[in-house]
Amino acid sequence: MDADRQLRTTVELRSIGRVSSSLTRPADAPRQPDEGAPPATLELDPELAPAVVGLGAGDAIVVVTWLDRADRATLAVHPRGEQDRPVLGVFATRSADRPNPVGLHTTRVVAVDGARIEVDRLEAVDGTPVLDVKPALGPAETR
Amino acid sequence: MDADRQLRTTVELRSIGRVSSSLTRPADAPRQPDEGAPPATLELDPELAPAVVGLGAGDAIVVVTWLDRADRATLAVHPRGEQDRPVLGVFATRSADRPNPVGLHTTRVVAVDGARIEVDRLEAVDGTPVLDVKPALGPAETR
Repeated sequence: MDADRQLRTTVELRSIGRVSSSLTRPADAPRQPDEGAPPATLELDPELAPAVVGLGAGDAIVVVTWLDRADRATLAVHPRGEQDRPVLGVFATRSADRPNPVGLHTTRVVAVDGARIEVDRLEAVDGTPVLDVKPALGPAETR
Repeated sequence: MDADRQLRTTVELRSIGRVSSSLTRPADAPRQPDEGAPPATLELDPELAPAVVGLGAGDAIVVVTWLDRADRATLAVHPRGEQDRPVLGVFATRSADRPNPVGLHTTRVVAVDGARIEVDRLEAVDGTPVLDVKPALGPAETR
């Protein structure tokens, strides 16, 4: 790598919408969608409706969120908060506390209405900013 | 949702490091890691080395990048640039061109040296900012 190349840079994002969910307290949120998460709605900016075209019921998607309640100064944690497990660096865990608390949630579309996307389960709390939505990748031949 | 709740918000991230790769031109980059991507090194800020502890050779990880050469105004595309496929909204595709061009790359750790992580294949070009590194999720009982 060039010695004079900048290692870190500032990136400014504008979220595309928010999570609408019955989950309101982070303490109540399950750690992963397959650990008891409720259904939720992604309320995207109506101006972005053209970007939703092609998504429909049954599609497997990855929702990228910004976990805005996380602690960005944390570099190491006990995995899943279990004190009897040895401390690991946050990049070796799925802890929400990390320098850039980007959440990745694999879920399934239940219905689409313009820029509103209902999903079958999501472990993010109500109001969480949504950064991106992508199809989950199937085998190479289906892309 | 509360009518007065803000739908979109600005989020400022600081990348944690950069990709070092033999891939220098976006046109040469394969679309996904399993489509011929070369090995690469994640050059993270040495101050973040404590966050890497616990990652080791063989671990499956998700690298979250910022695709800084993407066009953020694009809302719809022909999938994979194939003009004979119907136009889809970018949220229904893995196009790099999208409002928040966050890249998700599933790959495997080859070696770790402090804050440098070598991976076996990555389709991001040299210099791409890295936002986060997470373990790929296995079955619930292994977390």
